[in-house]
Amino acid sequence: MSESQNKPLILITNDDGVEAKGLKALIDTIRPLGKIMVVAPADPQSGMSHAITVKVPLRITKLIEETDLTVYRCFGTPVDCVKMALNHLLPRKPDLLVSGINHGSNSAASVFYSGTMAAALEGSINEITSIGFSLLNLDHDAVFTTAQHYVELITSTVLKNGLPKTVCLNVNIPDIEKEKIAGIKVCRQNMGFWQEEFDQRTDPSGKHYFWLTGVFHNTEPEATDTDEWALNNNYVSIVPLQTDLTCYSTLKTLHNWNF
Amino acid sequence: MSESQNKPLILITNDDGVEAKGLKALIDTIRPLGKIMVVAPADPQSGMSHAITVKVPLRITKLIEETDLTVYRCFGTPVDCVKMALNHLLPRKPDLLVSGINHGSNSAASVFYSGTMAAALEGSINEITSIGFSLLNLDHDAVFTTAQHYVELITSTVLKNGLPKTVCLNVNIPDIEKEKIAGIKVCRQNMGFWQEEFDQRTDPSGKHYFWLTGVFHNTEPEATDTDEWALNNNYVSIVPLQTDLTCYSTLKTLHNWNF
Repeated sequence: MSESQNKPLILITNDDGVEAKGLKALIDTIRPLGKIMVVAPADPQSGMSHAITVKVPLRITKLIEETDLTVYRCFGTPVDCVKMALNHLLPRKPDLLVSGINHGSNSAASVFYSGTMAAALEGSINEITSIGFSLLNLDHDAVFTTAQHYVELITSTVLKNGLPKTVCLNVNIPDIEKEKIAGIKVCRQNMGFWQEEFDQRTDPSGKHYFWLTGVFHNTEPEATDTDEWALNNNYVSIVPLQTDLTCYSTLKTLHNWNF
Repeated sequence: MSESQNKPLILITNDDGVEAKGLKALIDTIRPLGKIMVVAPADPQSGMSHAITVKVPLRITKLIEETDLTVYRCFGTPVDCVKMALNHLLPRKPDLLVSGINHGSNSAASVFYSGTMAAALEGSINEITSIGFSLLNLDHDAVFTTAQHYVELITSTVLKNGLPKTVCLNVNIPDIEKEKIAGIKVCRQNMGFWQEEFDQRTDPSGKHYFWLTGVFHNTEPEATDTDEWALNNNYVSIVPLQTDLTCYSTLKTLHNWNF
């Protein structure tokens, strides 16, 4: 068996698209750890969540084929990319899925809207060890040096220790120098919601249209065990996410309802 | 205070679009229970999950304004509809959000892809009592008589009892006559994944394209306490879903990792 065949098989995707700087930073960091297949969206897919493409067909193009690195562009969503990789492109189930590095935070309720985290959750649904990485900087020209250090550290640790089946990690990294990071904090998802402010404008024909803009409303600002607290205090946050959405405490309540 | 002002304010949406038969069935069933605002997508949005529209602006059109019933069409996703209703159209936070009736099942892992359930989860994130209803029939001409009976029963019970904050209900209804329904089963989400089979075709210019098709792979076929089991045994299934995705058992494991 060749050295290449002994290496872990790692699937990489993102939601900012195949040309994003965060994807390149992720590939550069992960490449020494295994045999890499990248399947990333052709266009930016921020806010696409767990959407799948059903109205139009999918197309893929191979962009790079080198030793231990293959890169595909997929004209679809992040979850389409994962499905295409798992069911059509990869020779076997990958040992790991990493998604990102996202340009912008995916803490708290953002996990619901994020294409980056949807790709990681899709990995977990398929019982693949999965991690989503995000840097707290939306800029397309963000600097990923600090993020890359923690991506390498956390990915190596996960490859060594494994994760429980159908659980993935949501990792957010402050946009500060490595020396200023307070450490890594394992924490829970901060509860809260996005309070939208629709920016109403009028088009040249006099019709109204709206841009969705909003601010995060933290419903538990006093909590110190959440990802929001960790990030506000310069920690890298790690939240383990589950794909069983059942609320077991409510199950008990509902069993007492008399329908 | 007029009678209308004492009625609960109910927001209705769906993912099959404002013209869907399932939406009409839901409106007809819910209308006697309160003051109704419908904000539904202009086009079918199946598989759009929790996607939000960020690349293009949103537009809305008022279609109906009657006593206690207002209907808007929104050129966006189901979650856009909920955000537009909560932050722009409704005079106050609604007392209830109901989504559906979806044409097709949203049991097990389907909750991740479903626009119907994303709308209900968006309600929960915003601390609104929310329910998503789905009928196990994909056909656009499905018959909703059985479903309407259970929509009325379950919605009335929820209006009376309330739900814990940030928890919504995922209700699936077998496509059989009311007399053949075995009852209502409160249950947990069945684990499993969609095993995709990409239908590869060739376009007139010789390029390949792919249609996403798949079958659900049940990873716990022996379980008898899940929504899949309930539906296969002619029960209406109710799964309470939470919006805190943290896997607390894994939190403990990760605290012992030495980063």
